[in-house]
Amino acid sequence: MPTDLDIARQAKLRPIEEIAAQLNVPESELYKFGPYIAKLPLHLIDKEKAANGNLILVSAISPTPAGEGKTTMSIGLTQGLNRIGKQTTVVLREPSLGPVFGIKGGATGGGYSQVLPMEDINLHFTGDFAAIEKAHNLLAALIDNNLQSKRRSLGIDPRTVLWKRAMDMNDRALRHIVIGLGGTSSGVPRETGFDITAASEIMAILCLSEDLEDLKRRCGNIFVGFTYDKKPVFARDLNAQGAMAALMKHAIKPNLVQTLEGNPAIIHGGPFANIAQGTNSIIATRMGLSLSDYVVTEAGFGFDLGAEKFFDIKCVTAGLSPKAVVLVATIRALKYHGEVPLAEVQQPNPDGLRRGLPNLEKHLENIRKFGVEPVVAINRFTTDTDEEIEIVKAHCAELGVKAVEARVWAEGGKGAEELARTVVEVVERAQGRFKPLY
Amino acid sequence: MPTDLDIARQAKLRPIEEIAAQLNVPESELYKFGPYIAKLPLHLIDKEKAANGNLILVSAISPTPAGEGKTTMSIGLTQGLNRIGKQTTVVLREPSLGPVFGIKGGATGGGYSQVLPMEDINLHFTGDFAAIEKAHNLLAALIDNNLQSKRRSLGIDPRTVLWKRAMDMNDRALRHIVIGLGGTSSGVPRETGFDITAASEIMAILCLSEDLEDLKRRCGNIFVGFTYDKKPVFARDLNAQGAMAALMKHAIKPNLVQTLEGNPAIIHGGPFANIAQGTNSIIATRMGLSLSDYVVTEAGFGFDLGAEKFFDIKCVTAGLSPKAVVLVATIRALKYHGEVPLAEVQQPNPDGLRRGLPNLEKHLENIRKFGVEPVVAINRFTTDTDEEIEIVKAHCAELGVKAVEARVWAEGGKGAEELARTVVEVVERAQGRFKPLY
Amino acid sequence: MPTDLDIARQAKLRPIEEIAAQLNVPESELYKFGPYIAKLPLHLIDKEKAANGNLILVSAISPTPAGEGKTTMSIGLTQGLNRIGKQTTVVLREPSLGPVFGIKGGATGGGYSQVLPMEDINLHFTGDFAAIEKAHNLLAALIDNNLQSKRRSLGIDPRTVLWKRAMDMNDRALRHIVIGLGGTSSGVPRETGFDITAASEIMAILCLSEDLEDLKRRCGNIFVGFTYDKKPVFARDLNAQGAMAALMKHAIKPNLVQTLEGNPAIIHGGPFANIAQGTNSIIATRMGLSLSDYVVTEAGFGFDLGAEKFFDIKCVTAGLSPKAVVLVATIRALKYHGEVPLAEVQQPNPDGLRRGLPNLEKHLENIRKFGVEPVVAINRFTTDTDEEIEIVKAHCAELGVKAVEARVWAEGGKGAEELARTVVEVVERAQGRFKPLY
Amino acid sequence: MPTDLDIARQAKLRPIEEIAAQLNVPESELYKFGPYIAKLPLHLIDKEKAANGNLILVSAISPTPAGEGKTTMSIGLTQGLNRIGKQTTVVLREPSLGPVFGIKGGATGGGYSQVLPMEDINLHFTGDFAAIEKAHNLLAALIDNNLQSKRRSLGIDPRTVLWKRAMDMNDRALRHIVIGLGGTSSGVPRETGFDITAASEIMAILCLSEDLEDLKRRCGNIFVGFTYDKKPVFARDLNAQGAMAALMKHAIKPNLVQTLEGNPAIIHGGPFANIAQGTNSIIATRMGLSLSDYVVTEAGFGFDLGAEKFFDIKCVTAGLSPKAVVLVATIRALKYHGEVPLAEVQQPNPDGLRRGLPNLEKHLENIRKFGVEPVVAINRFTTDTDEEIEIVKAHCAELGVKAVEARVWAEGGKGAEELARTVVEVVERAQGRFKPLY
Repeated sequence: MPTDLDIARQAKLRPIEEIAAQLNVPESELYKFGPYIAKLPLHLIDKEKAANGNLILVSAISPTPAGEGKTTMSIGLTQGLNRIGKQTTVVLREPSLGPVFGIKGGATGGGYSQVLPMEDINLHFTGDFAAIEKAHNLLAALIDNNLQSKRRSLGIDPRTVLWKRAMDMNDRALRHIVIGLGGTSSGVPRETGFDITAASEIMAILCLSEDLEDLKRRCGNIFVGFTYDKKPVFARDLNAQGAMAALMKHAIKPNLVQTLEGNPAIIHGGPFANIAQGTNSIIATRMGLSLSDYVVTEAGFGFDLGAEKFFDIKCVTAGLSPKAVVLVATIRALKYHGEVPLAEVQQPNPDGLRRGLPNLEKHLENIRKFGVEPVVAINRFTTDTDEEIEIVKAHCAELGVKAVEARVWAEGGKGAEELARTVVEVVERAQGRFKPLY
Repeated sequence: MPTDLDIARQAKLRPIEEIAAQLNVPESELYKFGPYIAKLPLHLIDKEKAANGNLILVSAISPTPAGEGKTTMSIGLTQGLNRIGKQTTVVLREPSLGPVFGIKGGATGGGYSQVLPMEDINLHFTGDFAAIEKAHNLLAALIDNNLQSKRRSLGIDPRTVLWKRAMDMNDRALRHIVIGLGGTSSGVPRETGFDITAASEIMAILCLSEDLEDLKRRCGNIFVGFTYDKKPVFARDLNAQGAMAALMKHAIKPNLVQTLEGNPAIIHGGPFANIAQGTNSIIATRMGLSLSDYVVTEAGFGFDLGAEKFFDIKCVTAGLSPKAVVLVATIRALKYHGEVPLAEVQQPNPDGLRRGLPNLEKHLENIRKFGVEPVVAINRFTTDTDEEIEIVKAHCAELGVKAVEARVWAEGGKGAEELARTVVEVVERAQGRFKPLY
Repeated sequence: MPTDLDIARQAKLRPIEEIAAQLNVPESELYKFGPYIAKLPLHLIDKEKAANGNLILVSAISPTPAGEGKTTMSIGLTQGLNRIGKQTTVVLREPSLGPVFGIKGGATGGGYSQVLPMEDINLHFTGDFAAIEKAHNLLAALIDNNLQSKRRSLGIDPRTVLWKRAMDMNDRALRHIVIGLGGTSSGVPRETGFDITAASEIMAILCLSEDLEDLKRRCGNIFVGFTYDKKPVFARDLNAQGAMAALMKHAIKPNLVQTLEGNPAIIHGGPFANIAQGTNSIIATRMGLSLSDYVVTEAGFGFDLGAEKFFDIKCVTAGLSPKAVVLVATIRALKYHGEVPLAEVQQPNPDGLRRGLPNLEKHLENIRKFGVEPVVAINRFTTDTDEEIEIVKAHCAELGVKAVEARVWAEGGKGAEELARTVVEVVERAQGRFKPLY
Repeated sequence: MPTDLDIARQAKLRPIEEIAAQLNVPESELYKFGPYIAKLPLHLIDKEKAANGNLILVSAISPTPAGEGKTTMSIGLTQGLNRIGKQTTVVLREPSLGPVFGIKGGATGGGYSQVLPMEDINLHFTGDFAAIEKAHNLLAALIDNNLQSKRRSLGIDPRTVLWKRAMDMNDRALRHIVIGLGGTSSGVPRETGFDITAASEIMAILCLSEDLEDLKRRCGNIFVGFTYDKKPVFARDLNAQGAMAALMKHAIKPNLVQTLEGNPAIIHGGPFANIAQGTNSIIATRMGLSLSDYVVTEAGFGFDLGAEKFFDIKCVTAGLSPKAVVLVATIRALKYHGEVPLAEVQQPNPDGLRRGLPNLEKHLENIRKFGVEPVVAINRFTTDTDEEIEIVKAHCAELGVKAVEARVWAEGGKGAEELARTVVEVVERAQGRFKPLY
């Protein structure tokens, strides 16, 4: 089998103008970064259309070391939907450079369900992370300058400053540091640290903002620390928001790329799900919904963590109404939940599989609480037996849920056609019954 | 008078394809960043042509708080040369974000001699600084990971590590820091600090490299620190150079923009002159010389510091042969060198001016040691009197040097036509007599 | 009323030789520190006699901000016992200098029940704390020297070193520090801190040791940290115990002083009860029991914390068998436990007092679990009403416990004669029934 | 040969009362620390007598790794003077614990010229160093408490605080530290460090003070740092001097011990000569001069550094008038100054010796500038040849200076009788001509 990188490198990319044309966006609207990447202007967003569009969320059962493949499934399903004639865009998060150089690898899908140009997306892409990092660190520098300043001092107690610095790098030695050493000309000594950029509050703000003006206002509201008199200090007290927004002028615009099969992909924002909302920007999702009939998107971690945030934070904030949830499950992960050791999940084990089904069942139950209909996508691996696949399908059938096998890694969109058809059925049946939990 | 920003914002920019066309570069060769910025591929460089091209260096007398205007003069002269029919490109350094948010302001010229789009160039531009910063910090993270690691440990003594981290920000509180605090999972405690990105060794390397392969090799040769056994450790011992070069894939390509009058400007690399070579990349200068008849470039600080490095480091490394040096002087700066207080330099003071002329004279003497002919460009301000201008001209005439008044800030290229003609004469007379001092 | 300091300063002290004579210790055995303080040699200890001696523990109900007066009661009771003809020594802890300069004040009793010379005891005394501090910090210096050393390195991971430094000072800025900064000649950077000397493990060791040889062995067993290979490192691996013991040569000998009424007082060791055993040295207690018929001693905090440690750690280790427990209670503290606000505890409030009695009751119950008979000593204040005193007495009577009023602060030994008689009755009834809980 | 320690341990000490009796000090005036050490009360000082007493300074040629033996010579000379009938006291510095545990060893003389009880003097002695350390660190704690305090804040800029902490320990990892970490309750983060106690300013103050009141005033004048408004802050602004003086109540009193031959020795104060005045306290020197006919004392390092400070700081401050200077030289050290390698200084080498004589000569010249007559004491080693001794004597004779061989290490006072007689001659000839250089 070729590797993901081999497949990505051998792919013949289409000029980004052609991808834009699928969305009826003329070349003149594109802010290009080379031939295959472009930023889209915010005026293309139609909030009304976005609110009612066919939004499909891809989530997963509880994450395991065995992996589930949400991104790959999202891309494969998008390719599948396009193959069965539905104009569909996949909307995803931007990868963090930290994990790219770490063990976890990039976040651009896999096999024949990838977004391209893979290497550019995984490295600097269009500089969005760099801009977030710069805006984040500008605020930090303004804080330390204010601590140092005698004339403009806000009287901030350095020990209460919660705003750290950010770097898009797995650099654990920067987590806990002491800065401002070296004498009176080098700032005020204090303890602080660096967070990875994906964990920056600016990242969360970017992904919740309507536009640059809204982002600027939200940046001004960032809490910085307390004065010696215990009064809260905000970024706006340092007059930081203007420069921060200026640095984010391009970063606020979503990025258009393509899937391996030449379907549109919008990639924008990348907050981690463990500490933030774990899903791409509202701007990106609305852009996708404004320009295409179907939008497939994903939320980090399992349904309980990532999708709960997606529904209760993002959809509520943006007024979005998902029409279906695709819950990705693998036979291997279900076995793992059935307490089969990781080393043995590739061997047939119907009993172990059955012991893991309650995990799937609970997620399905949770999905329905939001008033949205689930479809189970079984991400098929070559080691899975037909018997095992049937066990899952049968169990789902009992619960009144369709479970469909999908071979998105090995076959791309072709392997997701049945899933696509099932999802379309669910979407067409949906009657806007989505309701948040609180 | 409108401000620099007003002038920049009101300018009507030409599509970058048109600028490229002036250099006979087809659109297909451009890697665009929006409509007005593009990166040029390295294969367009013709080393042979570059070695013999008409390279004009703009330098200055000793810097003063009054300012001299080298960048503005370089741009204005380029516009002047184009106006008198010489196909000319100005080749400049990229500005550092630090000073942009500080007192010093951007580095894109002034008045009617600017490079555009000014705001983009001054902020993230094409991400070159971000890429350098990332490559720099990746090496730092690899060092700290190695300190932390037991299996792959090189035995580096953390206290000897000279490689700091980099951030393109005026953030003095990061100059002296202690990192690696917080226990065994957060690295190894040690003293270090951040340098501004313009002071990164990667910046110096970028500007001296021939191509990506050369950059990779040079990155591998970076000295990191000593082992406990006093053996030197290099970046290549950490196998860092591959990933560093991958991060610099786009950054190594020079950036094409335009002057206010629509002439080509190549902007690439930005090392500080105080700690590094203080001039744009060899790649950029060669690209300019490969694609146009004349190239105007500048070197940081005064002739003695910046231009000496330009000649003895850059020209020697790259085999370049400058044909003329334009030495920028202002009446105000000369008075300041004549010990007129800063507050009074705008008042007529012929005697003070005369007392400052030895500064100019010494720089001219130094220029001739390199075998290159100087032209003095008097950067005219409205407060200068004609008598004062004549004093300088007469003094230069005695020394056998042409001194020409130029009004590049107020009049753009039109104000530099006489200077352009004088420079062309000098260039045409030049017979490749450039020789380094050592 | 005169202050404690006034009373102490006006007291006429008896030469230490006279005090020693009461214990049948000749002058030649004394190692004097001026005329009123002497160290006693360890050979005077008679372990057999100590094991069976009449040891009386003074403890208290749960501590409150109102204060209970354990030390003052111990001294007053000792004076009372001597007044009724029982040869008695009070054995106490040495005060820490930290609280002396802080809010809490010294620990030498109060009013007419003090130990003298008060100022010397509260400051350097006989240098025991200084010696402990020095031994403690010598081990710390040996650790850091070993980290620094290449030839004798034990391979200790600096981040695992738990051994801090010690200083007998309330100096919170030293609690969390980073040391070893300043380059290769100044040690290895690491996080550590200072503990107050009373919290030093050496203090705990001193108070548990039999003699200098035992102390040396215990010092050698101090756990220091782990090697990079996760092996534990002990002080003996650094060969530290010999020098540590040499520094403790005098400190191991108990100090003899006197009460305001000229009775013998032995003061030695001062571990805090919150982090260590909270009672004076085994050596001191044994010395007292070897040289006198009765010994009164105290344990830090309330009975549940301090006395539990006294019984289960000290008595078990040293083979001591307490014959009675005096539980100090104040009307004010009982009211506070009855939820009367601190500001109002000086006003008569029988109901509030009754609500606080369960605290007293529970402590009495706990005391009996050790097989020792309690006596309640009501530390009388002028604001207490007779009605309130009667309430406590009556309640204790119901529980079969004698409660006796004592006016030790105002009247010294005279105010404790009734208490003394009651305690003697209990002691004489005791039949060695003491048993530890585990 | 027995070691210094063997000799010290086998010595039969005389009770300190007997030593005091030699000085006509009755037992009642002694504040004893065990049988062989006592502090003397300040009222025994007779300033008038001290100003005119026979003070003999022992200094040395430039120090070498070969060692010169000033302390041993001072003790030996004292023993010699007593042997020839002159009632003499040696007055010395207290040793620092740091070097005791380091390479340098103690500072109590050597061979048969030692002060006793050696081990006690070298370890805690009478707690003077501990008291200095405590007073020093109390001020440091008050500074950090003030930085932390909001109500009593003096507005001190933490980065300007020059007052470090002190510890009598060779602990290089404490030289450069960051304190106040751990959040708002643990002080204010700042850079500082520990000095060895011998380098504490309190040590210098102790040695220059007249009495406790003077010490208190000097402590109040200690400079601490600057406020944010650039105003100097002194210890008195923190009201620190009272507590500091209280901690020094005993430390200010000089310590009486004995030489191996039972002569009085007063040991008090121990500032290092490299950073402070390098000589014992004025109080100690005056005490010696008040109680005996002759006083022998020494100053750290060579004559140029230590004795210059002794004359120009100590003698001027205290109004002392030295009658003679004994300049200690060794054949080995003179050879070393004659550029004979250290490894060869024990071999006969008359030429090398002669080449080193100018060092001796220059020191003699310097001594005479102070109006004091020098005597050269050749500290004889067994490897020295008679020829070499004669070369030195002859050379000194030419300069009009007596050079006398002394065998103080091997023979104690007996080996210094000739030296003693020579010194007495010089002292008797002296006519109070001492004059400081400035």
